[in-house]
Amino acid sequence: MPHIPDPLLLQLFAIFVWAKVFAEGFERVGLPAVLGEILAGVVLGPYVTHLIEPSPTVLSIAEIGAIFLLFTVGLETSPKELIRVGRVSLLVALAGIVAPFVFGFAYIRYVHGHPAHEATFVGAAMVATSVGVTARVMGDLRVLGSRVAKIILGAAVFDDVLGMILLAVVAGLASATGIAWVQLIVLAAEAVGFAVFMIFFAPKLVHRIRPGVERMSTRNAPLILALAICLGLSVAAERIGMAAIIGAFFAGLAFAEYSPEWNLQPRVNAINEFLAPFFFFTMGSRLDLGVFTPGILVASVIITVLAIAAKVIGCGLPVLKEGWSSALKVGVGMTPRGEVALIVALIGLQMDMISQAVYGIVIFMTAATTLLAPPVLRYLFRRDLAKGEVLEEAVSE
Amino acid sequence: MPHIPDPLLLQLFAIFVWAKVFAEGFERVGLPAVLGEILAGVVLGPYVTHLIEPSPTVLSIAEIGAIFLLFTVGLETSPKELIRVGRVSLLVALAGIVAPFVFGFAYIRYVHGHPAHEATFVGAAMVATSVGVTARVMGDLRVLGSRVAKIILGAAVFDDVLGMILLAVVAGLASATGIAWVQLIVLAAEAVGFAVFMIFFAPKLVHRIRPGVERMSTRNAPLILALAICLGLSVAAERIGMAAIIGAFFAGLAFAEYSPEWNLQPRVNAINEFLAPFFFFTMGSRLDLGVFTPGILVASVIITVLAIAAKVIGCGLPVLKEGWSSALKVGVGMTPRGEVALIVALIGLQMDMISQAVYGIVIFMTAATTLLAPPVLRYLFRRDLAKGEVLEEAVSE
Repeated sequence: MPHIPDPLLLQLFAIFVWAKVFAEGFERVGLPAVLGEILAGVVLGPYVTHLIEPSPTVLSIAEIGAIFLLFTVGLETSPKELIRVGRVSLLVALAGIVAPFVFGFAYIRYVHGHPAHEATFVGAAMVATSVGVTARVMGDLRVLGSRVAKIILGAAVFDDVLGMILLAVVAGLASATGIAWVQLIVLAAEAVGFAVFMIFFAPKLVHRIRPGVERMSTRNAPLILALAICLGLSVAAERIGMAAIIGAFFAGLAFAEYSPEWNLQPRVNAINEFLAPFFFFTMGSRLDLGVFTPGILVASVIITVLAIAAKVIGCGLPVLKEGWSSALKVGVGMTPRGEVALIVALIGLQMDMISQAVYGIVIFMTAATTLLAPPVLRYLFRRDLAKGEVLEEAVSE
Repeated sequence: MPHIPDPLLLQLFAIFVWAKVFAEGFERVGLPAVLGEILAGVVLGPYVTHLIEPSPTVLSIAEIGAIFLLFTVGLETSPKELIRVGRVSLLVALAGIVAPFVFGFAYIRYVHGHPAHEATFVGAAMVATSVGVTARVMGDLRVLGSRVAKIILGAAVFDDVLGMILLAVVAGLASATGIAWVQLIVLAAEAVGFAVFMIFFAPKLVHRIRPGVERMSTRNAPLILALAICLGLSVAAERIGMAAIIGAFFAGLAFAEYSPEWNLQPRVNAINEFLAPFFFFTMGSRLDLGVFTPGILVASVIITVLAIAAKVIGCGLPVLKEGWSSALKVGVGMTPRGEVALIVALIGLQMDMISQAVYGIVIFMTAATTLLAPPVLRYLFRRDLAKGEVLEEAVSE
């Protein structure tokens, strides 16, 4: 259309195509598509070839993409599942949140001597497991019915919620000048209250308005309602000092139970398919490869090792009584970080809370954990499958 | 997310919710939802209550919405259907394009003495039938199998393509200084060539690459490909001097045949559900009710009468040998204008080719034709149904 500044449409086209070309290349050699889309941004972005510098409008579209990304994560996180998740999964998730945060914070704060707010962001970015890669590996090996798989998938659900609460507190805390304990407590209470409300009450509310929604004259009324609530809670979250994506995640949570019945997931996913590449591409385009001096590279490797060790130890410990092999598998399975880590880093960068170098470290850690976990996990499962271990037992509490 | 300028998310939320609230209200009293979304923009926009003034980013999102709107129209326009459409439908479409253009152009140019380019835009906006309302009325009355319905639906498919070719020529012509005949002929040839290629060859190309697409590692590869081509052809159309939406429409055409198999339509529609309200709302927000002086109101009514008469005469004539009743039903059924008329008016406004007053006239005409056609059509069909006329005959050429 003549009025669109020509570069916008062209930029959208170029970013979409290049992100998808890189993604397809990555998928073909068995690597996660998301990393391909980020690499497209790194390679074509302003720090390397200068071919595409995302305009402010594209950046806004990318952030709407982040909102839909987290809305989808929420849609896939059933509160019912959450309430009935096993005690073991709960412990795995909890320990798997605390250990990486402590490891990451301590290393950046006390070894590198960076300020507390920067260390807080790194710790927060190390927390959230992105279980998609793990689930796919387990699916390929046909071990999704095993007890280990069920513990991992249960823990991942809980992990998302805890990660969001932590992010809410961290982002709110970091934007304050100095550490205001009162504010911190208020924020934590808000975040927990938000989570509790969305897990226990929101699905009941949706259930109650369901007949009304289905009687509405608007076509696709449930989808429209879900989109409106997603935007509304994003705004609300921002207003009470959290990140918008937290609101989007909780909005997803509220609709998760009705997502199959209302066929929400594939349709929200279509919006995602369109918007997410802009998010991942701009993620990559903000990464200055020049920050990877030998010192930062070493720090990146150490953070990655800590991120892996923290999950293997934190998530493995609660399972240890079921044997070393199960503990190791759960630990490795919870290792990959993904979208949430990237978004935490991006928020930190945008709020000027972390430096370009620390942003690079987090992206390095995210990519490395996502790349390393699948082959190790495949090896561990295959070894046990070869030994003929029974993997299809039911979960027992 | 902290970086998003707070007003953007809030504006997206407010526009989405208000557009949908008005749409639901309109649907409940049996009026088209689209008019409700436009009215929301009029009422809340900068000319009436000043509550919401769409930001430049929202305007960009609205125009991406227009692209997806036309992409969907294309997806629903099967080229196969087009090739086999009956001779009568073809004549109905052709006469139904020529008559409104001539009527509209002549009235604005010779009665009101406006410049030729403004008259051209009004004529072009009066051309394209939006058959959705008619189809719904006929569906409600269960006469979709009747010969009249088949002629209307066949003509509507052809009408879309002809309307797009005309728009391409008009927009290109209007942006030139004076009437350059060489340029006009080049543009017309380009538009026809584009249409012929997308109708006859593009579906074969899609057919040929289909095995490759289905073998791709990327999830949802067909959807990704369709989105990429939609963006790509929008950019290409702009580059050769047409409106981006024309490229999007033709991209839809290329995928129409595989849309059911690849499940494209519901998923592209989900993107639409999210983006279209921003388009219709901003449409309304640009309408200054103050332009409706008594003189402009009279002109609006006359243009509306001409728009109705042109379709009733133009589309009715080719059917006249089948009886007055059928001719009238086809004519009235082809009367409603919709998205394309609105987009033509918006492009004209953005290119400074039409005045605020003429923009108001086109919106008035679109709303009036959409509102008037359904009750008249319902009356005509019911009268004949009461007479016990057989309506379920097959189409004979």
